[in-house]
Amino acid sequence: MTNKQVLLKFGTENIEQHILKNPIPRSIWLQEGDEPFVQIIDQRFLPHENRTNDLKSTLDCERAIKEMEVRGAPLIGITAAFGMYFAALESLRHDDGETCLQKKAAALRASRPTAVNLMWAVDQQMALAKAHGFNQQLPEALWNNAKMLMEEDAEVCRKIGTYGLELIKEIAAKKPGEPVNILTHCNAGSLAVIEWGTATAPIYQAHLQGIKVHVWVDETRPRNQGANLTAYELGVAKVPHTLVVDNAGGHLMQHGMVDLCFVGCDRVTKNGDVANKIGTYLKALAANDNQVPFYVCLPSSTIDWQISDGLSEIEIEERSDEEVRYIQGLHDGEVKQVLICPETTAGYNIGFDVTPARLVTGLVTERGICQASAAGLASIFPDK
Amino acid sequence: MTNKQVLLKFGTENIEQHILKNPIPRSIWLQEGDEPFVQIIDQRFLPHENRTNDLKSTLDCERAIKEMEVRGAPLIGITAAFGMYFAALESLRHDDGETCLQKKAAALRASRPTAVNLMWAVDQQMALAKAHGFNQQLPEALWNNAKMLMEEDAEVCRKIGTYGLELIKEIAAKKPGEPVNILTHCNAGSLAVIEWGTATAPIYQAHLQGIKVHVWVDETRPRNQGANLTAYELGVAKVPHTLVVDNAGGHLMQHGMVDLCFVGCDRVTKNGDVANKIGTYLKALAANDNQVPFYVCLPSSTIDWQISDGLSEIEIEERSDEEVRYIQGLHDGEVKQVLICPETTAGYNIGFDVTPARLVTGLVTERGICQASAAGLASIFPDK
Repeated sequence: MTNKQVLLKFGTENIEQHILKNPIPRSIWLQEGDEPFVQIIDQRFLPHENRTNDLKSTLDCERAIKEMEVRGAPLIGITAAFGMYFAALESLRHDDGETCLQKKAAALRASRPTAVNLMWAVDQQMALAKAHGFNQQLPEALWNNAKMLMEEDAEVCRKIGTYGLELIKEIAAKKPGEPVNILTHCNAGSLAVIEWGTATAPIYQAHLQGIKVHVWVDETRPRNQGANLTAYELGVAKVPHTLVVDNAGGHLMQHGMVDLCFVGCDRVTKNGDVANKIGTYLKALAANDNQVPFYVCLPSSTIDWQISDGLSEIEIEERSDEEVRYIQGLHDGEVKQVLICPETTAGYNIGFDVTPARLVTGLVTERGICQASAAGLASIFPDK
Repeated sequence: MTNKQVLLKFGTENIEQHILKNPIPRSIWLQEGDEPFVQIIDQRFLPHENRTNDLKSTLDCERAIKEMEVRGAPLIGITAAFGMYFAALESLRHDDGETCLQKKAAALRASRPTAVNLMWAVDQQMALAKAHGFNQQLPEALWNNAKMLMEEDAEVCRKIGTYGLELIKEIAAKKPGEPVNILTHCNAGSLAVIEWGTATAPIYQAHLQGIKVHVWVDETRPRNQGANLTAYELGVAKVPHTLVVDNAGGHLMQHGMVDLCFVGCDRVTKNGDVANKIGTYLKALAANDNQVPFYVCLPSSTIDWQISDGLSEIEIEERSDEEVRYIQGLHDGEVKQVLICPETTAGYNIGFDVTPARLVTGLVTERGICQASAAGLASIFPDK
């Protein structure tokens, strides 16, 4: 099978059928029937191979999480929630089913011990199991609950998109016939969540409404999630886009080639400081220097109400320097890693940086858009 | 022969012998004797293979320029100047030697038609030939003139280093025992010129004087000159350094991990705006936001006294998007290119950006350091 053919396969559907049903591809979807199961995109091989994996057992779900076939906090959580459905199904076949279910829940939790969403999802399902009682109807209850959690996540992102869409519309109105140029960094797309993405949600909604958009996709070294994932999913959804190196954004903004920046985030402080993929801060500086609006798109679950100052209070993960020294890509039809520096050169690899609130034009959440400040956040989250 | 062994070879010397004689490796050097010739590092294969090529004819010099075995304006010019020595030597064997010399000069000029330094160097040599007269002593005169031009370039860079060194010393005095952390972008090192480099000249001089320095080397996508060339030459000279992705510099500066930025440039306007490798502007913004001094090192030949506003007056080269879509590196002992995005994704590739003078702390030239402004430049170049 050639690589092109692999790219056209999308689970049990071909990709055209999938897009007709889902204009924005999902990272996880269900095959419902007598023996329902789950399908995911195996993200480790994107964009060069579009492999989809069937998840039909607890072990399948554990493996998908552990081997990073799925990534992104919401997606990991939802995969585990469906893992609990399989766990209940399998446990019913055992004499000591309840103990078996607990063991399987523990195994799911252990598949990525630092993932907060994973713990949360397994806890939710175990609480439901306790309330429901261990019986033949439990698997169906867990399946339905997982489905609800999945749709809730999709709905949060859809709402983020609805609010962000207004920002795109405002600019589109000022330049009729011309595309709105949006720069994004890393992958805050549908592949990081269930559907829509966060930073991409307004873009997808504009595209579906026929508003002309064009996306500048930052490569996003070291792991190249922009080149690998964002370019891939925008391509699948047929959203016009162009790949640029991370160095290019400043020049683009100086020359009026960017109307708007949308990025995602990993954590936001209650004062509006934003931790996101390394390099976000540099783009925010350039946006500020060129009066380009810079918006951060996030579900409110990302807000850490306990901390104020991002620079001093958010700990930044240091990762292996192999990610700096090597780059993965396709050569002769195979995914390979190449060394880009002398054998003896050491690298330093930090995953995230902090963009101070003063450089952020606004936060786009499922509750609406607010200023990146304590007052701004309080205005749409008075309950916090 | 293993790759390690290749790396240890340096022309007819091994690299240890070369470093003993030249603590800062040169990009071009001479083998003088009865039949003198020129040696260069074939930069196309750095850092993975250290190939040196012998230049023993006009054709060798043409090829080295055309095939980009040598790069950087000064180095191209000097290679052509030595090409003219071989041209004279070869022409003496012809009946119509003078016509032959002119033809060879034209061929050298055509080897890289847009390189201003190349034209300048060939013109210089042809003027000398005219003044000298076409005879047996002409080759030696041309050899000596090429050598003088070469040493002049090295001397300009040495002086830039001497002035820049004072900036490093000032910081070193404030943190005794600790290294001065310097960030650099792209390769403005000895490989781009003859010796010392521009941005690296102060660093090499500090290192040779025993002042502790540590260099953050920006990878410098798309062509990765930082990872390929700067990391390589700092390694050869044993200057402590660490490779980082282009996204990292802002974070480093926010956390006090950069004391000073030194970059080179391609063109400076009379008002002090700086055109340099794409991404320089982003680092200047971060330096400005974090009160990190940001210096541009340049020979005065880089100043374009005809233009004032960098953003509107300097034309920026757009290059093939293959440089964005593919990355070159070492895999299984061979240099290979890997595709880092979907097959169908288009890229946009601009070579340079413009850093406005307001973000530049100072210009380090062979005449001294001045403010990046018309008044600053006039203070050290009153003759312009």
